[in-house]
Amino acid sequence: MRLLLFMMNTYVTQQRERVENRIRELIEDTSSPALDDVPSSELMRGVISQALLSSQGGKRLRALLSLAAGSLETSTQSGVALSSDSLLDLACAIEIFQTGALVHDDIIDDSDIRRGIAAAHRGLAGIFTRFARSISNNGQEAAAADASSVGSGLGIMLGDLLATQSLTVASHAATQHPLHEPITTVFLRMQHEVEIGQIMDLADTAVRLDDPETMIENCLAVFRWKTASYTTIAPLELGFLSSGVSSGAAHLWAERIGVPLGTAFQLADDLIDVSQDKKTSGKPRGGDIKEGKHTVLLADALLAATPLDKATLIETYSLPQRSDSLISEVIKIFVRSGAVASSQKRISTLWSHTLVQLAACAKELHLTEESARKLEAVCALFLPHA
Amino acid sequence: MRLLLFMMNTYVTQQRERVENRIRELIEDTSSPALDDVPSSELMRGVISQALLSSQGGKRLRALLSLAAGSLETSTQSGVALSSDSLLDLACAIEIFQTGALVHDDIIDDSDIRRGIAAAHRGLAGIFTRFARSISNNGQEAAAADASSVGSGLGIMLGDLLATQSLTVASHAATQHPLHEPITTVFLRMQHEVEIGQIMDLADTAVRLDDPETMIENCLAVFRWKTASYTTIAPLELGFLSSGVSSGAAHLWAERIGVPLGTAFQLADDLIDVSQDKKTSGKPRGGDIKEGKHTVLLADALLAATPLDKATLIETYSLPQRSDSLISEVIKIFVRSGAVASSQKRISTLWSHTLVQLAACAKELHLTEESARKLEAVCALFLPHA
Repeated sequence: MRLLLFMMNTYVTQQRERVENRIRELIEDTSSPALDDVPSSELMRGVISQALLSSQGGKRLRALLSLAAGSLETSTQSGVALSSDSLLDLACAIEIFQTGALVHDDIIDDSDIRRGIAAAHRGLAGIFTRFARSISNNGQEAAAADASSVGSGLGIMLGDLLATQSLTVASHAATQHPLHEPITTVFLRMQHEVEIGQIMDLADTAVRLDDPETMIENCLAVFRWKTASYTTIAPLELGFLSSGVSSGAAHLWAERIGVPLGTAFQLADDLIDVSQDKKTSGKPRGGDIKEGKHTVLLADALLAATPLDKATLIETYSLPQRSDSLISEVIKIFVRSGAVASSQKRISTLWSHTLVQLAACAKELHLTEESARKLEAVCALFLPHA
Repeated sequence: MRLLLFMMNTYVTQQRERVENRIRELIEDTSSPALDDVPSSELMRGVISQALLSSQGGKRLRALLSLAAGSLETSTQSGVALSSDSLLDLACAIEIFQTGALVHDDIIDDSDIRRGIAAAHRGLAGIFTRFARSISNNGQEAAAADASSVGSGLGIMLGDLLATQSLTVASHAATQHPLHEPITTVFLRMQHEVEIGQIMDLADTAVRLDDPETMIENCLAVFRWKTASYTTIAPLELGFLSSGVSSGAAHLWAERIGVPLGTAFQLADDLIDVSQDKKTSGKPRGGDIKEGKHTVLLADALLAATPLDKATLIETYSLPQRSDSLISEVIKIFVRSGAVASSQKRISTLWSHTLVQLAACAKELHLTEESARKLEAVCALFLPHA
């Protein structure tokens, strides 16, 4: 068992390094030699450097999952598999898409921090200011343009650029391969689902605090569309396709495994917000509470808390923002109402479902024992504390 | 000649109607039946209704150009052509992409008006407010969420959704066809170029007013990347591919015809801003001047104006915004400096280049006389006053 764990760690470390290096190359490709001559090339270089910066620090779980699902071995004949290089690009494309989606996310949420550094649009505001100063005669003229609003504008474009680049990479990875059409289709569906999920998330801000059942229903829908879509379902589906699994089976098993796993992953992420320090999540503790996000934790607390605690929650969440001391108070209520324990239970149940589906999938697709074990081990990385 | 004009008008009217109807269907498809059960489905419906609204009022020139270039007849054998229905979808996909790009554009520029109605993010702010009120108990709770900022967030997502949908439609249009890969590639390149062009445009705000030569160079680069890319080049290239023209030739002729035509189109658009009323452009007169946009008109005026007028321009454009009376003054300087005449001359020269390239293309691709004439007539629609 210890040997297996050691081998798994080595495998994960190696794959992460391959992914990290290739992502860097693919993001640098976003620029274009045709731009070298135009006066704004300096700003373009700044935007790419921000893209590289914003891309760092991810755990690359989505890429690892695609790589594992994309290199399955079966005891029976299967379809044409994608080459190892193309599979790597496909895995990286998902990560690049995520980076772009997070750039848009942070503009929408007006977030300052992401993965422990300035959010992309904030970084871009600084890059624009330096660019404007370098052009200006006296360092003053640039002040006319509002750097913060140009930063958001550049952020919208960077998100768009990365979404386009992710599709370009994914579509190119499958060039001349029978998988070209389904891979493009699955990638586009993933983007579509995340966008719908983000709209659901924005709708969620309008849900009433006295209706926690609807809040839970809404949160779980957001988890499925905004998170599971690109975190587990699409990585599995693209991986399965790359292993030569048929379109129908790839879709079926990606949903069956990906929905419980992705939902558990998001529940665990919401728990990190209330339990861990800034270093682990790359975001300040209690950030969800500060911005008044409707979460399953909040809904569970509203359902199970004492009348007094419930009143405190409703009052606190009706404020435009919550101070640090209020955040601590809310976290205490989340714990003593049993909401934290309830989320932990939800996670463990969903992980059991994931394991059942993984076993069924392994059987149905005739996976070798090693392939099945590797796939399960990578899925387990999504829930390190479960 | 009058008969030809009449036939052309009938053709254009018919094609516009086909395009308009199909765009409506394709935008409605952006929603998903899976959403009907979730609590936020009402907001999703609102977002789609805004997409339909924002999509209306376009002249559909890009679709018409794709349709003309996509139904060429040649006197010699050519490759497999796309079916008429698929070509229509491809043409509509470009229009859908444009609508999405304009939604992002208006957020970046903080514009209130587009095509004579509220810009999408402003409309979405109202849609969110009504949605929140319909959920809330007492019509008050919703006030907590800042509708204007949620409107911008929804706008970013609507732009993303439409970009994804445009690619989905384009990629699907070529399914099972040898053109599938090049069509997807050209469509992705188009998106990439527009995004780069938008970044160049943002960089342009930092160009010094005392360096009009650089300003012109930068404007022309923005015209190529942000406008010609998706206005003329990609519609021509996707059309040529659909007619069965080889990838290499499609790219070559799309650039040769599309660059001068697209540049002339943008110059003419900038002229409309200073010469026409709100009704023609769907935007208030002098909007570019108001927001201090660096244009070829401004650069030409800075180059040719009297020292006094030049000083007035520099002073005026150094203000954060320009009042209506200052806008009138700037327009007068644009006229008396010869900048307006200079733009008109640029347009007419570029149109001559377009005609030369159209003739060369017709010869090289062995187009029938009717096909060549139709293609030229549709190109002429881009410059109704030239």
